[in-house]
Amino acid sequence: MAVTPAVTFVGLGSMGLPMARNLLRRGFEVRGYDVRPEGRAAFADAGGRTAGTIAEASAGAGILILMVVNAAQGEEVLFGEGALDALAPDAAVILMATCPPGAVAALAERVRATGRRFVDAPVSGGVVGAESATLTIMAGAPAEVLAYVRPALDAMGDKVFHVGPQAGQGATVKAVNQLLCGVNLAAAAEALSLAEKVGVDGAVVLEILSGSSASSWMLRDRGPRMLEEAPRVTSAVDIFVKDLGIVLEAGRGEKAALPLAALAHQLFLAASGRGEGAADDSQVIGSYRALNGT
Amino acid sequence: MAVTPAVTFVGLGSMGLPMARNLLRRGFEVRGYDVRPEGRAAFADAGGRTAGTIAEASAGAGILILMVVNAAQGEEVLFGEGALDALAPDAAVILMATCPPGAVAALAERVRATGRRFVDAPVSGGVVGAESATLTIMAGAPAEVLAYVRPALDAMGDKVFHVGPQAGQGATVKAVNQLLCGVNLAAAAEALSLAEKVGVDGAVVLEILSGSSASSWMLRDRGPRMLEEAPRVTSAVDIFVKDLGIVLEAGRGEKAALPLAALAHQLFLAASGRGEGAADDSQVIGSYRALNGT
Repeated sequence: MAVTPAVTFVGLGSMGLPMARNLLRRGFEVRGYDVRPEGRAAFADAGGRTAGTIAEASAGAGILILMVVNAAQGEEVLFGEGALDALAPDAAVILMATCPPGAVAALAERVRATGRRFVDAPVSGGVVGAESATLTIMAGAPAEVLAYVRPALDAMGDKVFHVGPQAGQGATVKAVNQLLCGVNLAAAAEALSLAEKVGVDGAVVLEILSGSSASSWMLRDRGPRMLEEAPRVTSAVDIFVKDLGIVLEAGRGEKAALPLAALAHQLFLAASGRGEGAADDSQVIGSYRALNGT
Repeated sequence: MAVTPAVTFVGLGSMGLPMARNLLRRGFEVRGYDVRPEGRAAFADAGGRTAGTIAEASAGAGILILMVVNAAQGEEVLFGEGALDALAPDAAVILMATCPPGAVAALAERVRATGRRFVDAPVSGGVVGAESATLTIMAGAPAEVLAYVRPALDAMGDKVFHVGPQAGQGATVKAVNQLLCGVNLAAAAEALSLAEKVGVDGAVVLEILSGSSASSWMLRDRGPRMLEEAPRVTSAVDIFVKDLGIVLEAGRGEKAALPLAALAHQLFLAASGRGEGAADDSQVIGSYRALNGT
């Protein structure tokens, strides 16, 4: 017997597909939808049910999970494509995409106006975390609403934090997380590019920094790829163009100056503008190489 | 029987005193000197020999270790106080303080002009590393000179890296290290202050960030103290005012733009200017609180 409530999952990309698969593995009845037919086909291959339209996928479901690209897509799914009206009258919508806090709060208000519930629950952990069900999930929702969706969240992540009762608070914590990721990544690039400029062996410097108080998760993960000519792409430069944009929008919403995030954003923007938007985000070091002529 | 060569150690402060003690423990004959009588007394208490003047402490020694505050003090010890002329004719000078690469190279040239050898060997690891003999040591020197001083370095650190043959290369790698420490620390402050501004619980945010890709050594070590009212001082704001100043001087020497380091420096400078120079460096978060009114 399937675990209840029935779940509709919209957005079967590199993150969404493994997350939806993990719900299936925990016994949830999941109907999946993606605008790309290959996303739907991959979910069907994993034993999931799919549907031809979002409204059909959403019919009567008790939980709708949105793992779409941005808040505008979430709005289109809910209101343009008719997902919200198709859900059970007391269903909960879980927005797990990285979105600006203000946009999340506005969506939540419109969802609640129809009698449904809303959980602001962005994730951290990337594709590896999505596949291994070890995502960090930052949930902003009233405690009783979180309790209702908790089994579904536990199927996708092993670190579920209740960061506050309001929609937008999860998004804010995710923005804080991305602020640090982006600045730490750009800082690693600035440090390694200075070593390059001076002609000290990058591999030796990276070994030293990785074992000292200079270390960061980003340095250890992305640093080695900064020293490669054309590294494999684990996350693209344009993801940080988007995410640091969201960080700055969160700051703007609070009228808070975030000077390091703003500067890091410029370096990713410039990399994207040089045609490197689809390259691995470690290649933000190219902005320093361009700037300093190394 | 004492290990040879005899070592003179100048600068018995919070770092130098435990470093000199570790040389004693490994059997080196060490004569210590510090301008502060209490520094000399503490070394005598540890079983070390001291002397009333630097020249006396240096007479005939095969190695002179400088753990002074800056390059100007190193120059004064070597040339003003007569340490260099008092050393054995083939002695090696090891400069372990954090100094600008250009100043280190200039000192090295003057030392070598007298026939002595020079090792540029700054350290990372703080007081904890100094006490437990687990410092990271970044040595710039010809291989045969490094081999001569290696037993002494091994007595003080367990991660001795040969970063290049030239004086100034060790200082550069230390600058690269401090660049990352300073930016990662300021970034942690920017992130936690945004969470504060929004009213999300700082302790929860810190727990999330510490276990995610946003994590850094600085976040995990200094983050908890950012949430305290008046934390104990492990390293002062003014140390980063100095060290990021050295980073920027290293960049200036290479004509390399280091925008994140420059911005982080401003935040530490402002904290010092508000009278917080002697506070724990985690209190750079005060610059964000002042700026954003939290």
